[in-house]
Amino acid sequence: MSKEQVQIFDTTLRDGEQVPGCKLNTEQKLVIAERLDLLGVDVIEAGFPISSPGDFTSVTEIAKIVKNATVCGLTRAVKKDIEVAAEALKYAKKPRIHTGIGTSDSHIKYKFNSTREKIIERAVEAVKYAKTFVEDVEFYAEDAGRTDNEFLARICEAVVKAGATVLNIPDTTGYCLPEEYGAKMKYLRENVKDIDKAILSCHCHNDLGLATANSIAGVANGARQIECTINGIGERAGNTALEEVVMILRQHPYLNLDTNINSKHLYEMSKLVSESMAMPVQPNKAIVGSNAFAHSSGIHQDGVIKNRETYEIIDPADVGVTESAIVLTARSGRAALAYRAKNVGYELTKLQLDEVYQEFLKFADLKKEVLDDDIHKIIELSKIDIKAIA
Amino acid sequence: MSKEQVQIFDTTLRDGEQVPGCKLNTEQKLVIAERLDLLGVDVIEAGFPISSPGDFTSVTEIAKIVKNATVCGLTRAVKKDIEVAAEALKYAKKPRIHTGIGTSDSHIKYKFNSTREKIIERAVEAVKYAKTFVEDVEFYAEDAGRTDNEFLARICEAVVKAGATVLNIPDTTGYCLPEEYGAKMKYLRENVKDIDKAILSCHCHNDLGLATANSIAGVANGARQIECTINGIGERAGNTALEEVVMILRQHPYLNLDTNINSKHLYEMSKLVSESMAMPVQPNKAIVGSNAFAHSSGIHQDGVIKNRETYEIIDPADVGVTESAIVLTARSGRAALAYRAKNVGYELTKLQLDEVYQEFLKFADLKKEVLDDDIHKIIELSKIDIKAIA
Repeated sequence: MSKEQVQIFDTTLRDGEQVPGCKLNTEQKLVIAERLDLLGVDVIEAGFPISSPGDFTSVTEIAKIVKNATVCGLTRAVKKDIEVAAEALKYAKKPRIHTGIGTSDSHIKYKFNSTREKIIERAVEAVKYAKTFVEDVEFYAEDAGRTDNEFLARICEAVVKAGATVLNIPDTTGYCLPEEYGAKMKYLRENVKDIDKAILSCHCHNDLGLATANSIAGVANGARQIECTINGIGERAGNTALEEVVMILRQHPYLNLDTNINSKHLYEMSKLVSESMAMPVQPNKAIVGSNAFAHSSGIHQDGVIKNRETYEIIDPADVGVTESAIVLTARSGRAALAYRAKNVGYELTKLQLDEVYQEFLKFADLKKEVLDDDIHKIIELSKIDIKAIA
Repeated sequence: MSKEQVQIFDTTLRDGEQVPGCKLNTEQKLVIAERLDLLGVDVIEAGFPISSPGDFTSVTEIAKIVKNATVCGLTRAVKKDIEVAAEALKYAKKPRIHTGIGTSDSHIKYKFNSTREKIIERAVEAVKYAKTFVEDVEFYAEDAGRTDNEFLARICEAVVKAGATVLNIPDTTGYCLPEEYGAKMKYLRENVKDIDKAILSCHCHNDLGLATANSIAGVANGARQIECTINGIGERAGNTALEEVVMILRQHPYLNLDTNINSKHLYEMSKLVSESMAMPVQPNKAIVGSNAFAHSSGIHQDGVIKNRETYEIIDPADVGVTESAIVLTARSGRAALAYRAKNVGYELTKLQLDEVYQEFLKFADLKKEVLDDDIHKIIELSKIDIKAIA
């Protein structure tokens, strides 16, 4: 059975870039957009054209160079926003306008001082107006995560009738648990008339560390687009990390879902975004962190040396990492020491290894990590009769 | 109804510390252990005593100073390991030995070249031997995430009969989806005889970005202990982040679960661990990242200025962060500019704000972030007739 496709909507250049310290110039954005296109994302959200003249220019230039992906521009449910976005997108091969409005009671009351009925009216008007410029119109129901499902279904139904092609259901504040978010998607699949005319989209924030799990719950319950960013950057604690959802779908074939992403580019893409934005990726970041494939405890190293799959579910090469590392620290065991000693030219017998290991532990207790050079010193200190053969 | 307690088992000093670059000396470990005790964790896993003389000393010294928490030492299912751990823990007010063995077919075959029956025998022997030293013995079924549930239930039943007080069900490779991991806990609750004599424990790894979601699925299905680390550090992509699971339970009262953690210490605890280990926390890390409570897009800032709860589900003060930040970038709107201008002494009229905002956008397009000093320059450049009143 061939797998169902989940569209990957990358918002690194919009939700990612709007973050303290992440601002990019147009040149940098063009480089990233080109590489996202090569990576195989289905949609590139290039910016929020009305927000500043610089962002307008960036969206215009990105629209010109992207070859395969849909190029999308964000707007509020405001005529002027939509006109400016349409103008910025006019050179795109596949343009999409992303418009919407807050739908939770908190947003309706405090942000708009409005009512549910008026919000539906504004949503429908915005979608209809966007449709006068482009065929592909995505609607976002901001704070959908805290919007009650019945009202959410009503507004979704209204905008689908007005021509929306994608329904974005954002958990704007990162509040939902996976079960809740999945149940919301299921409710919409079952209760919105003509739901098959639009694609349901997950847009999750990571305030409680659940963005990835929520997005997976969303597609398991009928959504077919995930909005995400490289390295999970984005407003506050960030968005869903593209590399995580892509690899989860690939590692769990029974979900019967896949994406168009060429995963071998993931690691270099992560480095490009991190370096362009000067946004560090923590060493323990899933998939793309510098330690993601490093094994340092003795128990784990021993297992990996015997058979990689004992502790590694992803082949590092599949995400573009050259090899998994056996790092030597005071928590490493004999197997790792023998493995690394062999790499630098020493074939140790069991007895020799026992002696060298004692020296190694004294040395390692004083040092964060034992490097290849240190191995030569340790072997010298342990006074066994062996020379490197390499 | 009073909430059920979930025990927090902190393994920052064991699973966290065994990582490339994270090594601490005994002095540093003592400082962290003392602060974990103040934070309110129920169990501190202090180290793996047999792994090195330095680690043995650390566990011994930590056992002496911890006042409230249980102090735990890791072992393999090996007599010598257990004896050394018992020795290191002899000064602990509440000692726990954590012993176990790999239970997945992959571990049994490739790591131990053994059979299921022999693995059960070794597990039972190890637990019985540990019980001769301490009352509180936790058993880990390594790679439980990939162990079939029926065999897992058999080995759990055998070790509970042998006296295990806690059953640790690790998703060692970070493979499970939340539904699977939750279902595994539910299966054990329903199929292990005398399961009420032991506490089920979640120990999840973050290789696919799901450690937090899996741990929550675990406790929602009957587990009552979560093994986690500050900042989610740990082997490869790390462990469950303590700060995330604690705040999820607090933000979702209908789960009817809580911990003993004093959340106001979370931010300073995160900084202490990050600085001691020189392990950076990425800005978009949930709860403790430097951007976790920063709002920069115009739409979000406008909402937060009107009513904080529009975009913020956690009061930053609850986790020890002084205030949420309104950061000025090219994506900021008039409301944010007016708010920050007011903070540095300018009360702008609507017309003045319009003029200053145009200058602001030109300025902000060239700069990553607009600071208070810049606001003075921008107001000067915009040539409106106003002086700071502060």
